[in-house]
Amino acid sequence: MHIRVITPITTKGFTTVADFDGVAREGTVVSVGHLEAGPASIESEFDEAFALPNMVVRMMEAERDGADAVVIDCMGDPALAAGREVLDIPVVGASQGGMHLAAMLAHSFSVVTVLKTLRPMFEHAAGRYGLESKLSSVRSVEIPVLELESDMGRLVDELVEESVKAIEQDGAHAILFGCTGMKGCAVGLQRGVAERGYPQVPVIDPVAGAVKLAEILVDLGLAQSRLTYATPREKEIAGYDIPARAGAARA
Amino acid sequence: MHIRVITPITTKGFTTVADFDGVAREGTVVSVGHLEAGPASIESEFDEAFALPNMVVRMMEAERDGADAVVIDCMGDPALAAGREVLDIPVVGASQGGMHLAAMLAHSFSVVTVLKTLRPMFEHAAGRYGLESKLSSVRSVEIPVLELESDMGRLVDELVEESVKAIEQDGAHAILFGCTGMKGCAVGLQRGVAERGYPQVPVIDPVAGAVKLAEILVDLGLAQSRLTYATPREKEIAGYDIPARAGAARA
Amino acid sequence: MHIRVITPITTKGFTTVADFDGVAREGTVVSVGHLEAGPASIESEFDEAFALPNMVVRMMEAERDGADAVVIDCMGDPALAAGREVLDIPVVGASQGGMHLAAMLAHSFSVVTVLKTLRPMFEHAAGRYGLESKLSSVRSVEIPVLELESDMGRLVDELVEESVKAIEQDGAHAILFGCTGMKGCAVGLQRGVAERGYPQVPVIDPVAGAVKLAEILVDLGLAQSRLTYATPREKEIAGYDIPARAGAARA
Amino acid sequence: MHIRVITPITTKGFTTVADFDGVAREGTVVSVGHLEAGPASIESEFDEAFALPNMVVRMMEAERDGADAVVIDCMGDPALAAGREVLDIPVVGASQGGMHLAAMLAHSFSVVTVLKTLRPMFEHAAGRYGLESKLSSVRSVEIPVLELESDMGRLVDELVEESVKAIEQDGAHAILFGCTGMKGCAVGLQRGVAERGYPQVPVIDPVAGAVKLAEILVDLGLAQSRLTYATPREKEIAGYDIPARAGAARA
Amino acid sequence: MHIRVITPITTKGFTTVADFDGVAREGTVVSVGHLEAGPASIESEFDEAFALPNMVVRMMEAERDGADAVVIDCMGDPALAAGREVLDIPVVGASQGGMHLAAMLAHSFSVVTVLKTLRPMFEHAAGRYGLESKLSSVRSVEIPVLELESDMGRLVDELVEESVKAIEQDGAHAILFGCTGMKGCAVGLQRGVAERGYPQVPVIDPVAGAVKLAEILVDLGLAQSRLTYATPREKEIAGYDIPARAGAARA
Amino acid sequence: MHIRVITPITTKGFTTVADFDGVAREGTVVSVGHLEAGPASIESEFDEAFALPNMVVRMMEAERDGADAVVIDCMGDPALAAGREVLDIPVVGASQGGMHLAAMLAHSFSVVTVLKTLRPMFEHAAGRYGLESKLSSVRSVEIPVLELESDMGRLVDELVEESVKAIEQDGAHAILFGCTGMKGCAVGLQRGVAERGYPQVPVIDPVAGAVKLAEILVDLGLAQSRLTYATPREKEIAGYDIPARAGAARA
Repeated sequence: MHIRVITPITTKGFTTVADFDGVAREGTVVSVGHLEAGPASIESEFDEAFALPNMVVRMMEAERDGADAVVIDCMGDPALAAGREVLDIPVVGASQGGMHLAAMLAHSFSVVTVLKTLRPMFEHAAGRYGLESKLSSVRSVEIPVLELESDMGRLVDELVEESVKAIEQDGAHAILFGCTGMKGCAVGLQRGVAERGYPQVPVIDPVAGAVKLAEILVDLGLAQSRLTYATPREKEIAGYDIPARAGAARA
Repeated sequence: MHIRVITPITTKGFTTVADFDGVAREGTVVSVGHLEAGPASIESEFDEAFALPNMVVRMMEAERDGADAVVIDCMGDPALAAGREVLDIPVVGASQGGMHLAAMLAHSFSVVTVLKTLRPMFEHAAGRYGLESKLSSVRSVEIPVLELESDMGRLVDELVEESVKAIEQDGAHAILFGCTGMKGCAVGLQRGVAERGYPQVPVIDPVAGAVKLAEILVDLGLAQSRLTYATPREKEIAGYDIPARAGAARA
Repeated sequence: MHIRVITPITTKGFTTVADFDGVAREGTVVSVGHLEAGPASIESEFDEAFALPNMVVRMMEAERDGADAVVIDCMGDPALAAGREVLDIPVVGASQGGMHLAAMLAHSFSVVTVLKTLRPMFEHAAGRYGLESKLSSVRSVEIPVLELESDMGRLVDELVEESVKAIEQDGAHAILFGCTGMKGCAVGLQRGVAERGYPQVPVIDPVAGAVKLAEILVDLGLAQSRLTYATPREKEIAGYDIPARAGAARA
Repeated sequence: MHIRVITPITTKGFTTVADFDGVAREGTVVSVGHLEAGPASIESEFDEAFALPNMVVRMMEAERDGADAVVIDCMGDPALAAGREVLDIPVVGASQGGMHLAAMLAHSFSVVTVLKTLRPMFEHAAGRYGLESKLSSVRSVEIPVLELESDMGRLVDELVEESVKAIEQDGAHAILFGCTGMKGCAVGLQRGVAERGYPQVPVIDPVAGAVKLAEILVDLGLAQSRLTYATPREKEIAGYDIPARAGAARA
Repeated sequence: MHIRVITPITTKGFTTVADFDGVAREGTVVSVGHLEAGPASIESEFDEAFALPNMVVRMMEAERDGADAVVIDCMGDPALAAGREVLDIPVVGASQGGMHLAAMLAHSFSVVTVLKTLRPMFEHAAGRYGLESKLSSVRSVEIPVLELESDMGRLVDELVEESVKAIEQDGAHAILFGCTGMKGCAVGLQRGVAERGYPQVPVIDPVAGAVKLAEILVDLGLAQSRLTYATPREKEIAGYDIPARAGAARA
Repeated sequence: MHIRVITPITTKGFTTVADFDGVAREGTVVSVGHLEAGPASIESEFDEAFALPNMVVRMMEAERDGADAVVIDCMGDPALAAGREVLDIPVVGASQGGMHLAAMLAHSFSVVTVLKTLRPMFEHAAGRYGLESKLSSVRSVEIPVLELESDMGRLVDELVEESVKAIEQDGAHAILFGCTGMKGCAVGLQRGVAERGYPQVPVIDPVAGAVKLAEILVDLGLAQSRLTYATPREKEIAGYDIPARAGAARA
């Protein structure tokens, strides 16, 4: 099985194949991709707007390359709907997948993200995914995306701090990372939260979760509904070089 | 007062200055714009993805040109949030504005749009705008966007047919056009619905409504909240030529 | 254009024509009215009950007098539905109009009103207008309606204090005055909130907003839906002197 | 125990003491009242507006007269909140009480009322009472209030017809009368619905239900919360002759 | 009238007939029952699972014994739906009944229960009963069920403390006991809350409330809807000795 | 990896190891279990009540036996919460897992179950799982559980019929089996729906989905939150032979 993880930014090395060692099961090949055109990181709807076209193109290329599923490596799930419309293989968003995993395991969950300005984006996403009643709060470590990895110790400390506040003040029963740049912190965060008196609180690393969901959708022969994500009518799109469509979504 | 109406497609002449004769009040100058890069029309989330970057750029240019407000001439409200983040002048979406006008005048409203595949998009928008309890249904005339104007008589007939079904079967108390290409049909639709036994049912032409809302926001000195639409951090965006930011949103 | 603003209390001078200088656009005539029978101020549902009959009569007189629209100058929107049933011209409530303007500009808003006992009333109104998910909280300055104007400096200080709490503790992204007696305070409040670290937070003065909404409804030829606000059947009403109905709502 | 049932209309004989034979338990005295000023019947928000002042006065008189509870004999629950603010004895609305009884016994219920134009009123009430998720639909027999009793056979037939539609098309599991003028029809309706294949479907007669709820609130020493229904501040109310307040609600 | 109150635990004396002196009206006989098989107390969904079978059997026996109604004496309402399916007499749950009484009297209510781990259970119940918008919070005294009666003074003090927090921090306007073992504390709690500045705040003792609701359902000839609670098909159930069904629910 | 699938009924052979050939991935051992005490099938809340105790015991035995996860093979998810409280390994319910998978792939889904009387159960479950806004409808084939396999051709035909109605009349974009006895019908149903004009509509077989979800939860080291599912306090439970608790949930 081949799963393509695409990071919708131009920064190289943000996500690497090695990030999925021990995540993907034996026999699953994970390949990664990033953008050629778009923002260096996504921290606003403005940034996201410039990520969409190339992200859709990258998704179409992944299907052409024979990928069995695509994972969107960003908590804004950019181009989730657009990609699902033109791909036949399943497209899994880190945010959508992560929220459903959290909702399955706990009465309520909080998102701990990079910047507090992202609260509306997560609340809209929870609404769109049908999970607004499960979202306790959106909290933030106030570290920009591209600085997350510069001091992992501080990052984990801040994550623990905000997660404990989410539990004690907001009623959260699980924690979902609000940026895919936090990958690798789940074990540390879970341990830190346990040390503060809350053992066995699930911490969801959304990219890992999305890759695993992609694996089982492929196994089950399931993909996005064509009733929700109708194949777009062919038309002229100026200024972009769009690959031919693969599979049944073609015409 | 200067209001810039931007149509997020590359098709010229879809909306013209003359469309706002008798809509804009005396003293309001309406200018129109369209995209250089993007889709010929928007009928899917795929189409919309390719409209976003140039739409944001066009909005920024409008502010640079001295516009007092920007109106998005499309019922998907593409780039509403992205544009609001980088502009200080008010940005009004046809969909958001139209839904609020409908909700103010009636217990419930239905959207009558071009294609039935757009139902999820409108339901998500209603949720995002906080108005899901007011949306009775999404119905469609099944005419593509760029064919709407080819037979206006048929269009009005279909609009009447679907609007009466919305009233009788879905409980709608007002009708909102689900495509800005339907402008000019409100009077005919209202008359047609009245002839079918339902007088004084508001029919909302969303672009006209959005222009009028823009006028009063400017008069009232109001614009989008910077708490909801935080100014994006400056960063590199590859492949796009983005104008310098105007006004207070400039870093 | 002629807009009649009616204050549903017997206290004279609470609202004057001069309050709309710089609010109504050139060419709009604003006239004001108040009650002959009813409470000196409205601070409870008990007070409001005694305002309703004369308020409906005053609205009917406004239509007879040739007004193009009626604005209800009270945040309880007393007689909004009753008036809409018997009038053909648009009736705009300060509360309904203000809530929709706030919801259009921000992810969430708080109402800052006179007395904390009014929280249920505002929560019910938000529900009725379909906007409960946008209402962050109801806060109060604890100053009775008729004492609001006695110390405007203190009023603005209290408004700033409660608005900052609404932003920091309740997640509000815009502020809506919860009493039309607060008119004239929007600029001061916006400045005060900005000085506390929150620039570009919309402050909605609901009566001003309602007058502007009335202007554009008249321009657009829109009024309340007759499906929501059916014309009442003629019947005997003892103890009240009710004017004959004008326009199409006349049986 | 003394329960005062007040009908908020001026029509005499609409509700009589005899209506509660077999409803009130032994030892409960039911007295009835109606309005001196107000509408002959209530079929719109316009009608209701003119019922409120005298209804509040009548409630205050009931408390002065030593009643232990007041029941509002109308499905619009006119003056429920206003009366609760100034009375210390429990005030029970037919609509609120009836909806809660229906919600306790069934997964969902429909209201069958007099006129279809009342749908918004019932949907607002369900929202205000916290029960919108339990309301399946609002249906109507299209018989005006004051003609209900002129042909009881036809009324029951129409009620059966609409109730069966509510069950089969709307998913209702219980039926609530949408006008207190339907009292006396519960047994016939329940039988009629059973004959159509739906035995043991609860039919709620709301006035009877409200009287019984009043009995147990008095027994339990419970009344409306003063936090929700704060005692109104004393003030001048012109044009109405308002009794002095009784009990603890007196300033 | 004969009402059977069944406590779904094996602990004898938790609830006694004397508890209903002054609650049941003259002429109502209250009998009590408890389990032979099941948990000593219910403080988790695990405990509740083992209470269900014998609870259903006890309910069926009550109907066989000629009871006119059954009351479930536990705030988890164990076997409410199961019992309603096989009984024709009304079954009233303490939790469902108590929540509806609280919702009728106040804009919002909080549950004060034994252990904070029960929050999900109460939030699910409120959702199931259609009352989630009325539930302000779930608070706890952190005293296990079987220790509640060991120090009634401390219990009332803790109830007052949590109730005041519920009012001041969560916006509660009424208090509902979250364990039927708190019976007898309503008067003390209401007084304590009044002394802290909040007079006339309803305190709902749910078992008492459920018994009173049972009385009036019997009077009104009402019971659970057979559309919601369909008679179960007869089938083999191994390991349990199930009485024959009484009444119309039989086959 | 070892996954134990437990069917909460006493009927042998309802689910067999062979049912998971081609579902479980290489390396996953699926074992199955059923009840010794309880109902022959579950078609009501009455039936379910008698399944709970032995189901909890069976789950505890599975953990003792070294299973890595437990799957509940019934769409009522009996003992999901109870089992999660006492087990440390993840417990996955067919209903909860199936609903989340459907919600991830489509804007909306319908459940097609055995009997229409199960609608309240599914609506409550959707609410409890936070997915009520995604559930379009509950439809049924009206075939009892134990007769499902007697005529698979007719079953698939009925499933297609109801699924097409769900799509056309209720707006469903995906179909979830409402009984785990329908396993094996997904391919036929998807083909049948495609032949009726709706290709690429996801059909979710919930037991298969739950097994796959269990696999990835184990891989990810995730299990239910101890904040939602607190370890039950040790206490006497009469009449049941309960195994000692394994793992960390042991007191």
